[in-house]
Amino acid sequence: MNEFEAIDEIVRTLGANSVGPHVQLGPGDDAAIISSPRGFDTVSSIDTLSEGVHFPLASDPKLIGYRSFMVSVSDLAAMGAEPSYAMVALILPDYPEIEWIKRLSEGFKEAADICEMPIVGGNLTYGKQFSISVSVHGWVPSGLALQRTGSKVGDMIYVSGRLGGAAAALEQCDLAGERAEGKLEPLASAFFKPKSRLDIGISLRGVANSAIDISDGLLKDLYSISVCSGVGMEIDSASVPVARGARLEQALYGGDDYELCFTGQMLPESLFSDIFCIGKVVSSSGIRVDGEEVAPGGYIHFSR
Amino acid sequence: MNEFEAIDEIVRTLGANSVGPHVQLGPGDDAAIISSPRGFDTVSSIDTLSEGVHFPLASDPKLIGYRSFMVSVSDLAAMGAEPSYAMVALILPDYPEIEWIKRLSEGFKEAADICEMPIVGGNLTYGKQFSISVSVHGWVPSGLALQRTGSKVGDMIYVSGRLGGAAAALEQCDLAGERAEGKLEPLASAFFKPKSRLDIGISLRGVANSAIDISDGLLKDLYSISVCSGVGMEIDSASVPVARGARLEQALYGGDDYELCFTGQMLPESLFSDIFCIGKVVSSSGIRVDGEEVAPGGYIHFSR
Repeated sequence: MNEFEAIDEIVRTLGANSVGPHVQLGPGDDAAIISSPRGFDTVSSIDTLSEGVHFPLASDPKLIGYRSFMVSVSDLAAMGAEPSYAMVALILPDYPEIEWIKRLSEGFKEAADICEMPIVGGNLTYGKQFSISVSVHGWVPSGLALQRTGSKVGDMIYVSGRLGGAAAALEQCDLAGERAEGKLEPLASAFFKPKSRLDIGISLRGVANSAIDISDGLLKDLYSISVCSGVGMEIDSASVPVARGARLEQALYGGDDYELCFTGQMLPESLFSDIFCIGKVVSSSGIRVDGEEVAPGGYIHFSR
Repeated sequence: MNEFEAIDEIVRTLGANSVGPHVQLGPGDDAAIISSPRGFDTVSSIDTLSEGVHFPLASDPKLIGYRSFMVSVSDLAAMGAEPSYAMVALILPDYPEIEWIKRLSEGFKEAADICEMPIVGGNLTYGKQFSISVSVHGWVPSGLALQRTGSKVGDMIYVSGRLGGAAAALEQCDLAGERAEGKLEPLASAFFKPKSRLDIGISLRGVANSAIDISDGLLKDLYSISVCSGVGMEIDSASVPVARGARLEQALYGGDDYELCFTGQMLPESLFSDIFCIGKVVSSSGIRVDGEEVAPGGYIHFSR
């Protein structure tokens, strides 16, 4: 059973326990939406990153902390939420040095500083595999959250930056050897220092019809929007912005870049710098790249 | 470095990143408090439970799911919050059977049903050690959350039920052999089916001066209140309610019972059934049981 089948099973079993009077949006999008009184909804999400799966254990813990936090916050950006607070639950490898903990915390701190997002609590236990779960919470004016369901035929498809850098880093870099203080290799930086496009997400409220953050790979994440919205998509590969040092294939299939992908009517160019239009939403289903139908072949964690 | 030293280091390193304009209470209590508009504060907490540490891997997954959820919700009870929503992040052992996932989910569902608390999202990954992180969120009228800091000299000290059952279960029961469907041994039930005293917590708003849920052991948790409130405590061991099948020592030092412990002026007996007065708050520091000073000897996870 792969990740998605397992999640389906959990959601199916939970049934009515995944919704409630205050739940505007339950499982299935980047984050859940819970009514919040003063005209704002609360947006909450949780992510787990583990050693050997999402980062090498030997990596600089400051880079691990930073990346884990930013990856989690990215779900808020994809919803158009402004960050409100986070909590961090750690499973630590047995008895790390205090300096190691300190550097990990500095990574959290650096990311939290950038996001202006307090870490208000957490949990700590020791175990066989170092992992970090980050619960993130944000606010969005009621009804303005960006969801995966809103794409309309005729929308243009945009991405917020160059893609494939993180995938190229996984292939080419000694990620365990990078240090936060040294000048990070640009590709290593794409992997360890994703940006969380909070500002762009907020700017897209009322402008974009749907949005997602690119975590599993552009085509896989586009596929998710297309299924949720009941539309098809046509991508022009020459328009896909490829990160320096990466290949087009990595930009299309590689995950971990955490740029935003969104659809909407033609945006005034003045609205954003560094936004790339890569295709358009059509009435047929599925994803086509340069006219060729592609399988939804983005990264699936651990699928067999 | 033990758990508490590691947490201290993290909080110290985070510094200003653990507070913010909307944070009424950051790290250090049972949960964090974040301002919520309509006269309510949002109360949020996260807990992680791992195989081999907090439950045997071979246990019935329905019992594991139930216990993990209730243990996490217990922090909301200790704050006097009404539950609003939860998220669950899982690290699963490699490729479990779908039936196993289903039973785990049923455990979540059963607990969520009892708490009337939707599980609105989560995360799933696979790893070397099965673990469950639950992020829980509740509401409490602004200013009425029960904290560890409010104990006053002259308060009586209360617990919400009999203690030591979970510790006795760990000593005496084959916890991996219990099934959710069979009639659980009473001691196994104390371990796998903690109650989360949400109703009592809500009733204590404006009544109790401080509260905590007993997770690390009565004396250890009392010690936490006494330090946070700057008071001492005198406990009468004959008044400590001991669970059937447990010893006094287990009631005093054993963790995992998840009853509430709280302090306040003499409560009208009509307010609660099954509440036990076990001592009083005094001006000296430390904890005394039957006049003898005790070390803060509750359970510390993994201390060396």
